[in-house]
Amino acid sequence: MKKKIRAIQYGVGPIGASIARLMREKQAIEICGAIDTDPAKVGRDLGEVVGANDAPWGVKISADASDVLEQAADVVIHSTSSSLSKVMDQLLACLKAESCVVSTCEELSYPYRTHPDLAARLDAEAKDWGVALVGTGVNPGFAMDKLVVTLAAVSQRIEHAKALRIVDASKRRLPLQKKIGAGMSVDEFRGQVAAGVIKHVGLPESVAMVADSLNLPVEQITETIEPVVARERVQTEFLTVEAGQAAGVHQIARGLGAGKELVYLELQMYVGAKDPADTIELQGHPNISLVIPGGSHGDIATASVVVNSIPVILDAPAGLRTARDLPIGFFSPNAKP
Amino acid sequence: MKKKIRAIQYGVGPIGASIARLMREKQAIEICGAIDTDPAKVGRDLGEVVGANDAPWGVKISADASDVLEQAADVVIHSTSSSLSKVMDQLLACLKAESCVVSTCEELSYPYRTHPDLAARLDAEAKDWGVALVGTGVNPGFAMDKLVVTLAAVSQRIEHAKALRIVDASKRRLPLQKKIGAGMSVDEFRGQVAAGVIKHVGLPESVAMVADSLNLPVEQITETIEPVVARERVQTEFLTVEAGQAAGVHQIARGLGAGKELVYLELQMYVGAKDPADTIELQGHPNISLVIPGGSHGDIATASVVVNSIPVILDAPAGLRTARDLPIGFFSPNAKP
Repeated sequence: MKKKIRAIQYGVGPIGASIARLMREKQAIEICGAIDTDPAKVGRDLGEVVGANDAPWGVKISADASDVLEQAADVVIHSTSSSLSKVMDQLLACLKAESCVVSTCEELSYPYRTHPDLAARLDAEAKDWGVALVGTGVNPGFAMDKLVVTLAAVSQRIEHAKALRIVDASKRRLPLQKKIGAGMSVDEFRGQVAAGVIKHVGLPESVAMVADSLNLPVEQITETIEPVVARERVQTEFLTVEAGQAAGVHQIARGLGAGKELVYLELQMYVGAKDPADTIELQGHPNISLVIPGGSHGDIATASVVVNSIPVILDAPAGLRTARDLPIGFFSPNAKP
Repeated sequence: MKKKIRAIQYGVGPIGASIARLMREKQAIEICGAIDTDPAKVGRDLGEVVGANDAPWGVKISADASDVLEQAADVVIHSTSSSLSKVMDQLLACLKAESCVVSTCEELSYPYRTHPDLAARLDAEAKDWGVALVGTGVNPGFAMDKLVVTLAAVSQRIEHAKALRIVDASKRRLPLQKKIGAGMSVDEFRGQVAAGVIKHVGLPESVAMVADSLNLPVEQITETIEPVVARERVQTEFLTVEAGQAAGVHQIARGLGAGKELVYLELQMYVGAKDPADTIELQGHPNISLVIPGGSHGDIATASVVVNSIPVILDAPAGLRTARDLPIGFFSPNAKP
């Protein structure tokens, strides 16, 4: 019998917690450490903090990353921030500990255009230490990029790629509903957009992944963020949005080149969305479309993609990888170590 | 500038011809040889035989496989038969020539359960010669297996997997319409099924790929082939099906284990199909489904998947690979060599 995969959870926010719970279901994984700086969590049992039925797990959350990373786990699941520049030191410390990394950092998903220097540095360090890292999740990482690239396998020529993701935020956690501005006035919403607070991070990275994978000559990537304005009152478990208030975000990223639009990604994430779905349309030979009715569920799917990426990142060549390179599948709870 | 990918087309039937035409569109590929034993094709120019607008291509079709393979091309595109045992010698000769292979042989797509000895031999020989081979196409290779495994990336637990592929054969080539029994009496159809003539090959391989990828404990794979009986007259470009005659095949493969059905693949391929589509349904946490309205087009998509697999098989570790392992994407016509 082979040894279990030893994993460290780096960041125990809502997403990190759902990832930890999912890892706990996999027979082949042993969670051997957890890192978080929140004083309300430090020193407590990871299982208790993530609300697991089978807590305690015997894994204490520590604020001392280097101490935890010293164990040289097989993989670190990293979930602390969307900003690549903010997490560079954290990622470099994981690599130096000779651990592979699966991160939810959206800007890491395909950083070659938006952060080429950081991408090059991570790739070089990962190769030096003989480990691989990837930034992934449901979006970026799956619904608006990997799935587009996968569908392209049945195409002979592609002229334009479009993905539309409509998410009903009503059933999502409160931080997400707040993050998308649900319940703000339209002015307040625009102010928060200007301040960089309201934003789904990762669309330009997805545009770049799609453009490069489909060899579409995208020279410029644009992005707009507008409010979805509620037409009627919407009540969620956590908050109320009055008609005329912002219900969430409507974000569009475009890849432009050769004098035209080549990639179009549209994200609508708001409370009360009527027809949530993931839709992909490829124009070319042949035209082809794909629909996931209801859409891949944001929180469940992010944890899924991250944990399902563990076997493939362990198997990948050393260096910076992206969802594009990895033959992602399913990591069964019953898979043998 | 790097050298072009040197490719040999092995088998110039209808599928081989469409693959050759598609390869010709790729700047990064140079077709350096072609093999077929049909006396009507031997000695003729490949471009002319496949009906290319820009023929002649300066590539003669030869019946002498060893002579053509001697060039040690980077990759051989192999498209001669659905039967793995029939093509073993052809595949072994390609490997011995130190060429990677992408084959449309359906039984090669996932041969570990149906032909374990042949699979082991091919894997060992490929590793000895330092090359990789894969059997792929749209089905098996994509619509009912690879896409199922890819969708599973957003799943946390999976209890059952289903794929339904409905193909309208009306617009397909005559050999396909005949192969599925369109226009036969129901008795004649059943006779041809019993004789092994009417059959879409590859469903058990897809069941096995899905079962293994999702770690579903499938112990037994069953398969049934029934006619779709025309309710009204159907006229295609090539033939007429009267009401009461067979319009095509209705094939169901099941993966059974742990006392229940775990994988269900249903293929309806007949002239006059009303709602062609590829549909996938995963039961588990969460339940999730995916639809390709209209379905991925059989002939176009098979050539697409095969040619789009060329860069990934060249990049893959030596040995027998399957669509499951390969991060397939799009091979752009404009991709630089």
